Amino acid sequence: MTREFSKIGLWGRLAEPAVADPARQISAHLAAAGLEVFGTASSGAAALLDGVAELPDDRFGAGIDLLITIGGDGTLLRSARRIAGKNVPLVGINRGRLGFLTDVTPDRMLEAIDTILTGDYLAEERLLLEARIVRDGQVRSSMYALNDVVLQRSEHMLYFHTKVDGSFVSAHAGDGLIVSTPTGSTAYALACGGPIIQPGVDAVVLVPICPHSLSDRPLVLESSSVIEVRTDSGTTDPPNISCDGEPLGELVVGDTLRIAAATETVTLLHPTNYSYYELLRSKLHWGLPNRSGQTPSTERA
Amino acid sequence: MTREFSKIGLWGRLAEPAVADPARQISAHLAAAGLEVFGTASSGAAALLDGVAELPDDRFGAGIDLLITIGGDGTLLRSARRIAGKNVPLVGINRGRLGFLTDVTPDRMLEAIDTILTGDYLAEERLLLEARIVRDGQVRSSMYALNDVVLQRSEHMLYFHTKVDGSFVSAHAGDGLIVSTPTGSTAYALACGGPIIQPGVDAVVLVPICPHSLSDRPLVLESSSVIEVRTDSGTTDPPNISCDGEPLGELVVGDTLRIAAATETVTLLHPTNYSYYELLRSKLHWGLPNRSGQTPSTERA
Amino acid sequence: MTREFSKIGLWGRLAEPAVADPARQISAHLAAAGLEVFGTASSGAAALLDGVAELPDDRFGAGIDLLITIGGDGTLLRSARRIAGKNVPLVGINRGRLGFLTDVTPDRMLEAIDTILTGDYLAEERLLLEARIVRDGQVRSSMYALNDVVLQRSEHMLYFHTKVDGSFVSAHAGDGLIVSTPTGSTAYALACGGPIIQPGVDAVVLVPICPHSLSDRPLVLESSSVIEVRTDSGTTDPPNISCDGEPLGELVVGDTLRIAAATETVTLLHPTNYSYYELLRSKLHWGLPNRSGQTPSTERA
Amino acid sequence: MTREFSKIGLWGRLAEPAVADPARQISAHLAAAGLEVFGTASSGAAALLDGVAELPDDRFGAGIDLLITIGGDGTLLRSARRIAGKNVPLVGINRGRLGFLTDVTPDRMLEAIDTILTGDYLAEERLLLEARIVRDGQVRSSMYALNDVVLQRSEHMLYFHTKVDGSFVSAHAGDGLIVSTPTGSTAYALACGGPIIQPGVDAVVLVPICPHSLSDRPLVLESSSVIEVRTDSGTTDPPNISCDGEPLGELVVGDTLRIAAATETVTLLHPTNYSYYELLRSKLHWGLPNRSGQTPSTERA
Repeated sequence: MTREFSKIGLWGRLAEPAVADPARQISAHLAAAGLEVFGTASSGAAALLDGVAELPDDRFGAGIDLLITIGGDGTLLRSARRIAGKNVPLVGINRGRLGFLTDVTPDRMLEAIDTILTGDYLAEERLLLEARIVRDGQVRSSMYALNDVVLQRSEHMLYFHTKVDGSFVSAHAGDGLIVSTPTGSTAYALACGGPIIQPGVDAVVLVPICPHSLSDRPLVLESSSVIEVRTDSGTTDPPNISCDGEPLGELVVGDTLRIAAATETVTLLHPTNYSYYELLRSKLHWGLPNRSGQTPSTERA
Repeated sequence: MTREFSKIGLWGRLAEPAVADPARQISAHLAAAGLEVFGTASSGAAALLDGVAELPDDRFGAGIDLLITIGGDGTLLRSARRIAGKNVPLVGINRGRLGFLTDVTPDRMLEAIDTILTGDYLAEERLLLEARIVRDGQVRSSMYALNDVVLQRSEHMLYFHTKVDGSFVSAHAGDGLIVSTPTGSTAYALACGGPIIQPGVDAVVLVPICPHSLSDRPLVLESSSVIEVRTDSGTTDPPNISCDGEPLGELVVGDTLRIAAATETVTLLHPTNYSYYELLRSKLHWGLPNRSGQTPSTERA
Repeated sequence: MTREFSKIGLWGRLAEPAVADPARQISAHLAAAGLEVFGTASSGAAALLDGVAELPDDRFGAGIDLLITIGGDGTLLRSARRIAGKNVPLVGINRGRLGFLTDVTPDRMLEAIDTILTGDYLAEERLLLEARIVRDGQVRSSMYALNDVVLQRSEHMLYFHTKVDGSFVSAHAGDGLIVSTPTGSTAYALACGGPIIQPGVDAVVLVPICPHSLSDRPLVLESSSVIEVRTDSGTTDPPNISCDGEPLGELVVGDTLRIAAATETVTLLHPTNYSYYELLRSKLHWGLPNRSGQTPSTERA
Repeated sequence: MTREFSKIGLWGRLAEPAVADPARQISAHLAAAGLEVFGTASSGAAALLDGVAELPDDRFGAGIDLLITIGGDGTLLRSARRIAGKNVPLVGINRGRLGFLTDVTPDRMLEAIDTILTGDYLAEERLLLEARIVRDGQVRSSMYALNDVVLQRSEHMLYFHTKVDGSFVSAHAGDGLIVSTPTGSTAYALACGGPIIQPGVDAVVLVPICPHSLSDRPLVLESSSVIEVRTDSGTTDPPNISCDGEPLGELVVGDTLRIAAATETVTLLHPTNYSYYELLRSKLHWGLPNRSGQTPSTERA
């Protein structure tokens, strides 16, 4: 049997038994099949899992050709930012309930991994954003985001404005702004009133957070757009920027937050029976008999 | 054992087996307990249910002192408008799933009815609206509504304006307007973006339907308010008005739709373990583990 | 001076003075410049406007190389469906206020037209949908839509389900569904909670109308998606389908509504100073000082 | 001429010229009319305004019988919490644009004040909330709120649950919760999707902030309700509580935030031509010709 992958990375919070247990099963299974299995130096993988070698954190992505993450979607998000540009696809094993990104459940994980190793999978390329804080013409900090870049007020009302490809879009007041990929559209952006965007759509969405003006609505843009955000002078304390929940820095008056699609993407591997709409139905309770004991006025009395 | 009620009305679509079966059990049970049981002349109750007498439809409310409805919330809504002002409380037996109004499930109905008959229940008074179409100074038609009065466009965009207690509120454009009681706030009004209003709140809510202007938002008013709606001249075809889904008439330019709390109310009887919030949790899936496999950006990665 | 266009069509409701007046100015101006100007046979253009020839309605698109519409966005929408596939670009002159599509105002129209005639313009290709009602394996009716295809309940609650590219998406209950292009995203879809989609985004959006389930949210799809909608059996009266407001037919149980991007597109010509974001700001009042006299709790007291 | 008020308090940020200028006009005007005018010791009023005496901050409310605030709504909110229970009505002079609470504009302020002094005004009693943080059975801190009590996550997702009058309502996940009076319903609560509540309605509203679950909707309750909020264990950092934007404290796991209507209320005085709906129209741009150049699909083409 030929295998497409031979150096497998394992990622997850191994200190948690709910992660360490499946990690142990997976590493034993892979080692038994003659594959090389690696963890990061900082994860303590070598001590916790039999037959797993450690790679320095900064060479982890370069040393593997498939990454298996174990945990929630947050775990996968964090790993994705680390291996971006390394051409390493990801498989997400969920500890418990199905995740949007970690769609392999523990009870079927060994079988799913075996099938994927034989090259039988759905590969899906996901857009990655790159956010940069520019101060005095210099990029001060930058980070990737697979879900979203979030600009959030500190204590007081935030005043800011947006530009797309150099054109002024609007002045905003409120709690902040989410710039989300299709992947992130089912995360924080959804809670803030954004649309669900099918992962194949070549777009990003700007979702204002609790905007002061009722006409300040989600705006879907081409993924090639360059989005710029600047804090306005009415703001009394600078907002915080984060990428997939990890802090990037503050946006003081005068700074520019520049967000654009990264040249790198992330490739997710799914079992062949994967269905995006089934995931949506399950996570959003679309399958459920809904409030229909109640008769809305439009139902026959 | 003293009983608070002795003449029991039964209401429901007896032609449907799912309704006739529990109706038969209830009527037999009540008759065996020596109570008088009545149906409406038009329902065919006498032929379908043993020991049930019929009353002319227009004297039904006057001839009973408790009404048991069997079916969905729509069935209860329809019965409520019939007995309004007759001082007859209602108990709603749901055919299947829990309803917001018909909160007694078939498997516990006989026990619940017995307990209620002994005077052990929660009584809840619910606000009733009265809607009138006024043309040339005359009331042309009027109807009660326990859930809502709905003004809905016909084919084209509807232009209309609203007044409260004689004061101009706003000009609107869109698909129409819902004037809802707290009872109706979990029905059509909720689908149109209205708030949930606890039944004890002394208020009504105006909810615009798909309004053209993004700042046209739900407006909660004192229940003593007199609400007037008039169609504006840009409208090409008159909108339809309905009360709890039953047609009241069209609102042509020049007409006034006048809505105010009725002097009558409706009293719902619930088993003593009734909980409004439990109903909300159940109907709106509040109890469910929600999308939490997904990590929003604010969750620790 | 070379001109890119020589046979100019005029479209609008000439019976209305607010349309006939600018039409007269435009036709005189074009005729004086030696261009051929045409109206449709049904419009009465020849009698109303000097120097304008009439073309049979069904040969109108084939006989012109530029179409100037005068009126509101609705007028342009109607003309767009007529000339789809004819490779004739459109310019929209607005009678009064700026429209989203008819972005040339009367006071600057002659100047704008002259500039466009010299080839100095922004050309923007807009996605067109094609909607088909399929019954017993046969296409019974079909129509183009530049804004949206709308499925709307008749009197009672509508139950329907959706598929995308053959995959089941969800069962829905409510008032209906909008399938909108980016162009239509600022029209009815916006009133129903949909996002604003920049016209260059290669996507369509499904927006449920007043959905019964609160988790039934707008869904953005690739423009290459084939969307299918079928009425479910709980529905008591068949819903109506319309394209840009023009009726296409009813969707009875068993029928399939199939919607996909048309192979044809529509090309809009704008003056070179056209700005989509400026239009948004103007139409959605983004430029205005908003509710900011009010201090939200997050503003410094 | 009899006057209803004789000891007038002035409140505002006198350090700002935009406030000091109208304050000077008002104090001179009142002094010339023989009235006593007071500022707080901390405001520096005596040095800045002729003929104004200072009162210690903690005796300010007791020493006056009318309070005039100059500034934005935030200024009035802050003053309202100080004089609650002192039976001192408020008049709000807005520095610039109309506020929801400060509805007297500078150009008409002297005239408006004179009319109010003669007893010719509309008095409006506004509900005040009292928020208490209870730890180990002890009230650790408490504060009044005229607009709202806001519970807001710190960095990560907040898990909390709510009770009303001792009954469990729901478990929530998201950015937090607003408990708003009708007065506050046009402030932060509106930005978070809450309804507008007419000030006379005897109710409060719970508005979840960016809730994780799409069915977690605004809930309107009787104003007599006792609302309790507790942080749940999934929360990694305690949320902050504020009253009208002023910090009250953190809600660590085990604490209870208890919110109920205060026994005190606040009385606002308005000129007799005051109209709540006119304010709404003005602040929410209801009066404006809206997006109507665009033809929604329901408008005649």
